[in-house]
Amino acid sequence: MSEEKKIPYKIYLEESEMPQKWYNVRADMKNKPAPLLNPGTHEPMTAAELEGVFCQELVAQELDNENPYIDIPQEIRDFYKMYRPSPLVRAYCLEEKLGTPAKIYYKFEGNNTSGSHKLNSAIAQAYYAKKQGLKGVTTETGAGQWGTALSMACSYFDLDCKVFMVKVSYEQKPFRREVMRVYGADVTPSPSETTDVGKAILAAHPGTTGSLGCAISEAVEVAVKNPGYRYVLGSVLNQVLLHQSVIGLETKAALDKYNIKPDVIIGCAGGGSNLGGLIAPFMGEKLRGEADYRIIAVEPASCPSFTRGVYAYDFCDTGMVCPLSKMYTLGSDFIPSANHAGGLRYHGMSPVLSQLYDDGLMEAVSVEQTKVFEAAEQFARVEGILPAPESSHAIRVAIDEALKCKETGEEKTIVFGLTGTGYFDMVAYEKFHDGQMNDYIPTDEELAEYRKHLPQV
Amino acid sequence: MSEEKKIPYKIYLEESEMPQKWYNVRADMKNKPAPLLNPGTHEPMTAAELEGVFCQELVAQELDNENPYIDIPQEIRDFYKMYRPSPLVRAYCLEEKLGTPAKIYYKFEGNNTSGSHKLNSAIAQAYYAKKQGLKGVTTETGAGQWGTALSMACSYFDLDCKVFMVKVSYEQKPFRREVMRVYGADVTPSPSETTDVGKAILAAHPGTTGSLGCAISEAVEVAVKNPGYRYVLGSVLNQVLLHQSVIGLETKAALDKYNIKPDVIIGCAGGGSNLGGLIAPFMGEKLRGEADYRIIAVEPASCPSFTRGVYAYDFCDTGMVCPLSKMYTLGSDFIPSANHAGGLRYHGMSPVLSQLYDDGLMEAVSVEQTKVFEAAEQFARVEGILPAPESSHAIRVAIDEALKCKETGEEKTIVFGLTGTGYFDMVAYEKFHDGQMNDYIPTDEELAEYRKHLPQV
Repeated sequence: MSEEKKIPYKIYLEESEMPQKWYNVRADMKNKPAPLLNPGTHEPMTAAELEGVFCQELVAQELDNENPYIDIPQEIRDFYKMYRPSPLVRAYCLEEKLGTPAKIYYKFEGNNTSGSHKLNSAIAQAYYAKKQGLKGVTTETGAGQWGTALSMACSYFDLDCKVFMVKVSYEQKPFRREVMRVYGADVTPSPSETTDVGKAILAAHPGTTGSLGCAISEAVEVAVKNPGYRYVLGSVLNQVLLHQSVIGLETKAALDKYNIKPDVIIGCAGGGSNLGGLIAPFMGEKLRGEADYRIIAVEPASCPSFTRGVYAYDFCDTGMVCPLSKMYTLGSDFIPSANHAGGLRYHGMSPVLSQLYDDGLMEAVSVEQTKVFEAAEQFARVEGILPAPESSHAIRVAIDEALKCKETGEEKTIVFGLTGTGYFDMVAYEKFHDGQMNDYIPTDEELAEYRKHLPQV
Repeated sequence: MSEEKKIPYKIYLEESEMPQKWYNVRADMKNKPAPLLNPGTHEPMTAAELEGVFCQELVAQELDNENPYIDIPQEIRDFYKMYRPSPLVRAYCLEEKLGTPAKIYYKFEGNNTSGSHKLNSAIAQAYYAKKQGLKGVTTETGAGQWGTALSMACSYFDLDCKVFMVKVSYEQKPFRREVMRVYGADVTPSPSETTDVGKAILAAHPGTTGSLGCAISEAVEVAVKNPGYRYVLGSVLNQVLLHQSVIGLETKAALDKYNIKPDVIIGCAGGGSNLGGLIAPFMGEKLRGEADYRIIAVEPASCPSFTRGVYAYDFCDTGMVCPLSKMYTLGSDFIPSANHAGGLRYHGMSPVLSQLYDDGLMEAVSVEQTKVFEAAEQFARVEGILPAPESSHAIRVAIDEALKCKETGEEKTIVFGLTGTGYFDMVAYEKFHDGQMNDYIPTDEELAEYRKHLPQV
């Protein structure tokens, strides 16, 4: 550790080197992601239909499969400068600890108050809502990262922000709630009595502690019924992956500065926003035949949509009020085991990533959570960052790949996305320390049962 | 906000521009800080006496009033690169919100897992302990920032770390405890039955929820009684201010890059480590007659050692086992009102800063906590960082100074230290939101009572 290193510990871009355009990977995909369908007619959703739910300009981005680059408005670039560029960190200490010849880099998105990459899309969605003259937006949040990010973004643009927070998280994560309150958001535990769909779910499942799919249904209902409001979503959608491409573009620019070409790129995958953003420009090169990379999506073994789901049209929400989306899915009423800590608990996966995966352009692996927390703690001790449970899925596989290099002697370059920090996840760490965490994995029979409820399209 | 700014939002130094030496402001002080005294003999403590409690090389640093620059060992500089250089941020958004002609900069030390500047000295103290071949170190922690920082540092150098945590914080801040556990520290609520001094305090004050002074006594006792252990402290001491000079040196280097000369430098002050570090090189210029700056220490009105204390020799700890120190003090058994949120609760102040203040080289103001939280929330909403309550004392006064500039039209340059983040302080924010926070300030009679217990030196 004591000799001076040529490549710095942290590569920061200059502000002038920050991306001025988002990259839209769909433009380079031969097989485009399947269109959203109207849940009633099963016809592709039109822009006009979508604009009842989403902001106008975001609908345009959602449907745009052609333009490879989309300008990032100056106001959003200014906000980005408050917490971006994020550092690309060379994990010298982790490499040394592992004794691996591999070179490990991670793009760290946790150094902002929302604690994760979610802010990259939150500020974009808030900006377009403001530009359209809306009063406010509605959304759902699970672990609370997205809700916090959206609260920050809405506060910045002076927009009203109504968050439906999965009830179990609302109760177990009072501090996340309080951060949203600092930013002036209105947070309701879901399911609630404030919406028709919430009432119906409560009637059908008294005492339920909620789910993301249910909170989505409530947020959409409020957006549709209240003039001046639209619904926004923190993952899965094409527009979100577009905004998150800022992660990958910065990563690639930082690597290019030092002529580093990654061999393996690894990201955790829940709805796919971080992974989709991180890999975007690399996947673009791959699609255009300019370069090749091994790309690995890491998901929890307890919510394995890529590795054990099916590629099919499904509902995005429990209340079935949203458009149908073709994606890798476990079925819209799938909820991970109560023991599952952290996020990455959505039943489906980004349609863009689903298509890329189906086309064999990326791999997916699933990992068990105690192994994930072991990696998290190992990482925290040498790299000094306490990672979020979600991000630690990527750490787990990065370490595993680096250890393979130790066996083979290969000096591979591994890049992974460190999406956020774990300051609000200490209950999960406590469970891990106290040996109260298990690795329950759904059986084939359970998964088959959930699959029965897929819509017939 | 939309035109391109010449000065970036965040000024980052290159790794090659990071300080290679700490700056020891004592070398430039005409009136040196008074020496530590043996509590029995009232004679100046010798190096040999101090080495029973502190690491050898740290004792040398503690007593060194002559050398202006001290090399930062390569191992520490390597660790610094994991989370430093920290950004100097131009608060464009805050300036715009306030409508002030003032230019506001803040040095942000919160982007590491300990959540504050404390890591700068923790890693140095752990390094010297390791170098001396020790088994481990002991310390106290209040709100938990210092304990977390030391845990991280000890984990990095594979040292045992025993933390005495003020009981009320131990119980109210389980997540801080859990972070220390991630880093393998042994955390004991103080006062405890594990030490003689702890037992004595518990016998005298059954049911006490503890204090910093009491936790210090316990930690010192354990260090002295266990071979291979020494005691380390996160603030107040000369050596800590020396290590923290890295904050000021980076700040000055970043300002110099853009030819910016601050008019006012503001920092919060509890024991004085952050403030002492931030102002070090600026104070050096002032002492050498090369430049002039207005320097303001901000302390809580509920723990006003500078503004309402006396400059006298006092005990550093409740158990009176530590050397006597000449400092601004409220008396060693002073404990702020139970309503006081966050840190900055030590009864005394750094001897270096005490001497500088007594010599009229800096100012001090005290602020009430609801005003502090108002500033914190205002800052969070526009600058996107959720500040620690401690740091928010500096924000309050920076905002007040910027608003004065708005009245006078002066384009002053204000620099303040943003020492940390508030992720583990959401209970305090909740109290603030719920109107359950009061601004109790000790009466003159109360302060006079505490002063009666000062030692006769």
